Amino acid sequence: MNSLRRISPYIPGEQPTGEGLIKLNTNENAYPPSPNIIKKMAQFDYTDLRHYSSLDNQELRVAIGQKEGINPDYISLGNGSDDVLAIAFQSFFQSDKPVMFPDITYGFYKIWCDLFRIPYQEVPLSSDFTFDLENLPEKIGGIVLANPNAPTGLVKTVEEIEALLKKYPETVIIVDEAYISFGGKSVIKLVETYPNLYVTRTFSKDSALAGIRLGYGVGGERLTSVVKAVKNSYNPYSVNSLTEAVGLEAVLDESYYKDTLKKIIDTREWFTGELSKLGFTTIESSTNFVFTKHKTKQAKDIQDYLKGKNIYVRYFSDNPRIKQYLRISIGTQEEMESVIKVLKEYMNEKSGG
Amino acid sequence: MNSLRRISPYIPGEQPTGEGLIKLNTNENAYPPSPNIIKKMAQFDYTDLRHYSSLDNQELRVAIGQKEGINPDYISLGNGSDDVLAIAFQSFFQSDKPVMFPDITYGFYKIWCDLFRIPYQEVPLSSDFTFDLENLPEKIGGIVLANPNAPTGLVKTVEEIEALLKKYPETVIIVDEAYISFGGKSVIKLVETYPNLYVTRTFSKDSALAGIRLGYGVGGERLTSVVKAVKNSYNPYSVNSLTEAVGLEAVLDESYYKDTLKKIIDTREWFTGELSKLGFTTIESSTNFVFTKHKTKQAKDIQDYLKGKNIYVRYFSDNPRIKQYLRISIGTQEEMESVIKVLKEYMNEKSGG
Repeated sequence: MNSLRRISPYIPGEQPTGEGLIKLNTNENAYPPSPNIIKKMAQFDYTDLRHYSSLDNQELRVAIGQKEGINPDYISLGNGSDDVLAIAFQSFFQSDKPVMFPDITYGFYKIWCDLFRIPYQEVPLSSDFTFDLENLPEKIGGIVLANPNAPTGLVKTVEEIEALLKKYPETVIIVDEAYISFGGKSVIKLVETYPNLYVTRTFSKDSALAGIRLGYGVGGERLTSVVKAVKNSYNPYSVNSLTEAVGLEAVLDESYYKDTLKKIIDTREWFTGELSKLGFTTIESSTNFVFTKHKTKQAKDIQDYLKGKNIYVRYFSDNPRIKQYLRISIGTQEEMESVIKVLKEYMNEKSGG
Repeated sequence: MNSLRRISPYIPGEQPTGEGLIKLNTNENAYPPSPNIIKKMAQFDYTDLRHYSSLDNQELRVAIGQKEGINPDYISLGNGSDDVLAIAFQSFFQSDKPVMFPDITYGFYKIWCDLFRIPYQEVPLSSDFTFDLENLPEKIGGIVLANPNAPTGLVKTVEEIEALLKKYPETVIIVDEAYISFGGKSVIKLVETYPNLYVTRTFSKDSALAGIRLGYGVGGERLTSVVKAVKNSYNPYSVNSLTEAVGLEAVLDESYYKDTLKKIIDTREWFTGELSKLGFTTIESSTNFVFTKHKTKQAKDIQDYLKGKNIYVRYFSDNPRIKQYLRISIGTQEEMESVIKVLKEYMNEKSGG
């Protein structure tokens, strides 16, 4: 059977479950989703599940459009932003020239390029992890920017991205705004001005709905028409009826999420300060996680110690540039106080000798 | 932006909604899904949706494995069988030789080949719509068989498919069993003997859960490892938590579905008999739909008349070989009695003139 795809088995990260663990390794939201979801779903007509889900997701697209101040026709939903991005890569990057993204960013960009045989080039971030957009290579088949970037947490301004859109008017630029609500300013409205811009969003982070798998992409008419054609050629009913119903309640409950966002940001700032007292240097974060390294201790050792105490954080063993860093999702204030307590114990044990 | 994918915008079929319409155009189940789903979902912990859904879908795979008598490690879940098939096409058909499928079959096989740039060859069915598996072309990059086939409703025996598996041991053969419960006999257990067999299933038809988007593929170790690698490179969390919970209840409630299956099959046989009295010739169906043509009336005219009476059936305008046929999903006995009543009116009106 030599027609089988030769592909390295990508191993997704750990998803531990169990009582009493503090799970800070996949940037899930610290707080539950809107309580209106429970009320709404109590009325859900499960007998209607015999019918296919909506093809055009009209109601949810209109609600998102109203919230974001954009034309609902510019919105395409998908099975998580991973699906939205995978469709976008297939739609936009049909060129011999390489697609550009930073060498330190969301790991899936590279994986999709490999899967869809898209040439790509990883542009090294500076030593302080900033991305110099003004000196990108000449020959470009596309640009993908996580903004804020992950796992660094650094954000670009609207003006910086707008300058890039102007500089490369014939190049599609995807801006992955998975974490935008935690500190950055969205470029979503620029899709009306720049036909080369495509913005993606997810319900997994700010909406605390990683478990429903819902994301969307926003682009002008031309990009959206290609996305629709590819999506409808892959899996037209990619958003199921339950996901659509739950997602709609989240979009409508802005005030609830405003509160949880504020709590997460406050905890992030407090946690960053405490880390500093313990000898950590933390990159300024615009997300619901921090990227931090200790002045003397090994990241791997800290991770192992935390894991022994049932605290899961993310360590990037396979990338030498960042293997001294830990990515720690911001949990509840109480959880982060526990983390600081355990880190203090660790520092005392290790310095005690 | 000349890096955009050039692709014809595939237009999915009509999904009419509204009071009082009889929707027999997309082969949805006539009856609601298991009532246990409502009970189970009343206990669902919506706050847990802040976490990602399961990566390996262990509980559901084990339940399916027990029901079907197969090793759960051979099962891969997806976002509907469209997703499962799209992943399978990307996994198995990396060859210069064309993939074979009948010229009259599920329309997506061709669309996925176009999307993934897989060469394909449509093999003409005989005039009675049977598929001669013994005279397939020599050079083959893969075979895709919907069994039972759609829209014809015709089924192959286990022995016929086994002969094919033996004849082409180095060729992956996908058997799409979307409709198998309505009359055919599954080849699912043959995956243990034939490493070149991949079987796909959906919850959309026999489980009456088109709205949750759940399907699965079953293959031996070698095929499953490639599928896993491709799936995890595309969208690892493709089955969301709500879908998994609902799907599990459906798998566990075999007795409920046994009843609804029997009702659908009984209605199909009654409906086929009534159609015959009205001058229709109907292909013997092993599915939850019938494929039928009238001896004198045009399929298009009948479809239009039914639509005027709020009855939706499927008409294939773009395929000259089957444009005299209608595909009519089997609804409830009451719904099908209404269809027969309307068809009688139509025949009287048209012959009266």
